[in-house]
Amino acid sequence: MLPQWIIEKKRDGQALSEEEIRCFIEGYTVGRIPDYQMAAMAMAIYCRGMTAAETAVITDAMMRSGDLVDTSSIKRPKVDKHSTGGIGDKVSLILAPLVACCGVAVPMISGRGLGITGGTLDKMESIPGYRTDLSVKEFVRVIQRCGCSIIGQTGRLAPADKKLYALRDVTGTVPSIPLITASIMSKKLAEGIDALVLDVKWGKGAFMRTIEDARALARSMVNVGTHMGKGMAALITDMNRPLGRCAGNALEVIESVQTLKNEGPADLVEVTLALSARMLLLAKKAKNEKDARAQLKKHLASGKAYEVFQEMVRLQGGDAGSLEKLHQIHAASLQEPMPATAAGTIAAVDAERVGKACVILGAGRTKTDDKVDFAVGVSGLMQVGEKVTKGQPLVVIHANDENRLEEARKLLDGAFTIRKGAVKEPPLVYETILK
Amino acid sequence: MLPQWIIEKKRDGQALSEEEIRCFIEGYTVGRIPDYQMAAMAMAIYCRGMTAAETAVITDAMMRSGDLVDTSSIKRPKVDKHSTGGIGDKVSLILAPLVACCGVAVPMISGRGLGITGGTLDKMESIPGYRTDLSVKEFVRVIQRCGCSIIGQTGRLAPADKKLYALRDVTGTVPSIPLITASIMSKKLAEGIDALVLDVKWGKGAFMRTIEDARALARSMVNVGTHMGKGMAALITDMNRPLGRCAGNALEVIESVQTLKNEGPADLVEVTLALSARMLLLAKKAKNEKDARAQLKKHLASGKAYEVFQEMVRLQGGDAGSLEKLHQIHAASLQEPMPATAAGTIAAVDAERVGKACVILGAGRTKTDDKVDFAVGVSGLMQVGEKVTKGQPLVVIHANDENRLEEARKLLDGAFTIRKGAVKEPPLVYETILK
Repeated sequence: MLPQWIIEKKRDGQALSEEEIRCFIEGYTVGRIPDYQMAAMAMAIYCRGMTAAETAVITDAMMRSGDLVDTSSIKRPKVDKHSTGGIGDKVSLILAPLVACCGVAVPMISGRGLGITGGTLDKMESIPGYRTDLSVKEFVRVIQRCGCSIIGQTGRLAPADKKLYALRDVTGTVPSIPLITASIMSKKLAEGIDALVLDVKWGKGAFMRTIEDARALARSMVNVGTHMGKGMAALITDMNRPLGRCAGNALEVIESVQTLKNEGPADLVEVTLALSARMLLLAKKAKNEKDARAQLKKHLASGKAYEVFQEMVRLQGGDAGSLEKLHQIHAASLQEPMPATAAGTIAAVDAERVGKACVILGAGRTKTDDKVDFAVGVSGLMQVGEKVTKGQPLVVIHANDENRLEEARKLLDGAFTIRKGAVKEPPLVYETILK
Repeated sequence: MLPQWIIEKKRDGQALSEEEIRCFIEGYTVGRIPDYQMAAMAMAIYCRGMTAAETAVITDAMMRSGDLVDTSSIKRPKVDKHSTGGIGDKVSLILAPLVACCGVAVPMISGRGLGITGGTLDKMESIPGYRTDLSVKEFVRVIQRCGCSIIGQTGRLAPADKKLYALRDVTGTVPSIPLITASIMSKKLAEGIDALVLDVKWGKGAFMRTIEDARALARSMVNVGTHMGKGMAALITDMNRPLGRCAGNALEVIESVQTLKNEGPADLVEVTLALSARMLLLAKKAKNEKDARAQLKKHLASGKAYEVFQEMVRLQGGDAGSLEKLHQIHAASLQEPMPATAAGTIAAVDAERVGKACVILGAGRTKTDDKVDFAVGVSGLMQVGEKVTKGQPLVVIHANDENRLEEARKLLDGAFTIRKGAVKEPPLVYETILK
C-alpha cells in the first residue's frame, strides 16, 4: 500500500480504513513517510474532513505513537480538564486542587502559551522552585500524595502530534477540526485518565472565533473520547472578554491564590465551579450539579483547596511561602493605571486586544523558543457590566519597558467599550455538550 | 509574505494574486519553499481549483522557471501539436514533416512513454543513429533546413515543472486540471511557438477517462494559451480503442513510414489530417479546412512528406536508409498471431488492455528509468467495424520472452469484442475547441 494511494483516497472524499490511518501515522512517526506526503494528507483532511470513526482512529494512532502514562497505581477516579485556551484563563490552577479535595485524582499535563493565549506551565513556573519537568514516576507520586499534579509534556508523549503540529503550522492546516481533535485528545488520553472535561472557548480571544466552530470542535472531541471509553463533557464558554481581572504569568498566579482563598472574581469562580462540578459528576463523586457545587464551595471557603495547592507546589520543589509575596518577587518596574475617558457601564472588553497587549509586554510567546517575562501583564481589569466614572482606572498595565508600555496602552485604549445606560452581561457558559 | 499564508488563501478557496503565485513557484524552483509546503499547496489547488487567470499565471511562472527556446531566427510561422497520450498514437511522426511541407515550422519537443502510453522519443530512437538530445542551436538549425525537428526536453526547460511533477506523483495531486495545464503548457510555450494544436484524448487508453474531463482540460489549456497570445485549438479524440494497427516503438515507426507513403490505416490518417489542418489554419497557410486537407493529401500522395521526414532523420544523425528495414533491424524473436475464436464484426478494441500488453512485452515503462525494447509490441490490430472469420488473426504479438508473450496474450484475449451483425463506428474526433 503506497502512501500516495491513501492520500488519493482521502483527496477523493472517501473514509480511510483503520489500517490505512494507522499505517500513515506510524510511517510518519518513524520517518518512513516524509513531510511532503503528510502535508498533502493534512490538506486533504482539511478539505474533505474525517468521519467520527476516522477521527477516533487517528487520535488513537497518535496517542500510541509514544508512551502512555501508567496511572493504574492511583486508585481514585482520574479526571482531567482541558481548555482550548484564552486570555486570563487560570482555571486549571484553582480547579486541580479544588477537585482533588473531593476525592478525584487530577493528572494534568499542560502546555505553554503560544500566540495570544497564555500557558499553564509558564504561570506555574513563576512560582520560585516549581518544577514542571517531573518524570512520570514523580508525577504519579505527587498525585498520590496530594490528589493532583500539573506538569509539562514529556518528549515521549504522543511524538506524532509534536511532529505533525509543527508541520501543520507551516502548511496552512492548523484549523482542521479532526486534526485539532486528534492533537488535543491524543495527548490528553495518553495521561491515563478515566474522564475528561473540555472547556471549549469561542470569541475574539479564542482559537474558535464562532460558537458554531466551538460547538463542532467540542462535539468532535466528546465523540472521540466517548468512543475510546472515557467519560466526557464539554462546556462552550465565552472568550470574547478576558476571564478574571488579571492576565500575565505571576499576575494570574496571584489571582488564582486569591480565588483559592475564596476571594476570586465572580466570573472566574463561576467558570471554575461549572467545569469542576462536571468533573465530580463524571467521577461519580456528586449526586447532581447542586451537590457538586456545594462540595466545591465548601472547600474554597474552608481553605482546603488552597492547602492542597500549596502542598502540590511543595511536592514539586516550589516555595509555597512565596505565593503570598509574588507581587514583590515579580514586580514590574512600570505599573501604570489607564483611566477611563468617559463615564458609563462597561459593555465589552476585547479579549484579543488584551491578549495582544500582554504578548507585546512580554508575557506571551510569538515563537516557541521565546522567553516569557513573569512580571508583566495587566491587573485590575474592569469587567462587563461594571459602572465606571471618568478618570477611574480601567486596567493597570505592568511593564518592564517604556516603549512596550506605550504600545500596549494603545491596544488597551481600544479594548473597552463604555456605554451609557444598562448593559446585559452575556453568558459565561453557553452550552454543555455530553456524549 | 509567508508561504503558509498563501497556502491558507488557496485552502479557503480564494483566488491567488499574480504576485503570490510567482513568489510561490520561484521560491519552490530555487528551494526556498520546501517540498512539504508545495505538497500542501498542490493539494489545496487540487481541492479548490484555480481560475483561468490563476492557471495562466502559474503556467507562465513555471515556463519562466528555466530557459526559453529562441526561435526568432525562424521566419516561418511556428506551430506545434501536443497529445495527452494514447495507445498507438504515432501522429507526431507523420504530422511534423507533413505540416512542414506546407510552409509551417514545427519545433517539437517530445516526451518519453510512461505508464501505458508510448512516447515519441522512444519511437524515434528506434531509428539507428537518430539523436533526440540536440542543443537548442542544433534544434533551430534542423528546423531551418527541413521545417521540423523532434527532440527531447533539455534540463533547463521549465525545471519547476520537472520538480513539481515528481512531487505530484507521490502526493496524490496528479489529476488536477490547473496543474496538468500548467505542466503541459509551461513546456510547450517555452518552445517559442506562435500557435499550438492539442490532441486531448479520452477513453480507456487515455489519461482522461471521460469526455467531460477531456473537455475541461482542453478548455483550460486553450484558455491559457490564448491568454498568453498564442493561436490555440484542441481536438477531443477517441482513445477507447488504439490508433492505427500497430503499437510498440519500431512497429509504430514502420506504420508511420507506411502512412507517410500514403498507405496508412484510415483512422490514423484521419486524426493526422484533422490535427494538421488545424495547424495550417492557425498558421494562416490555408483558407479553410477543405483547402488545408487538399494541401496535406497532396504532400502525402507525392511522397514529399516522407522526403522531409527522411531529411529530418538524416539531419539528426539517423540512418534514413534503415527506415525501410526496421522490421529486420528490430525483429522480435517471437511473432505470434492470435486467432479469433468466433466470427463477426469487431465492436470494440480495448486500448487499455493493448497498452498494458505492450508494457508487459517491454515496449513501455513503469518507472522513469526503465529501458524499453524497440522490437516488441503488436501489429496487424483488427479495427472497430471490420469483419472477422473464426481463426483469422486479430493481432500479431511481437515478443522477446515466452512468459511475457503468454501474459500479453491473456490481456489481448479480452481486448476484442466481436459481435454478430452491424456495428456503428464511434467518432474519431468528437469535438473541436477553439478559443
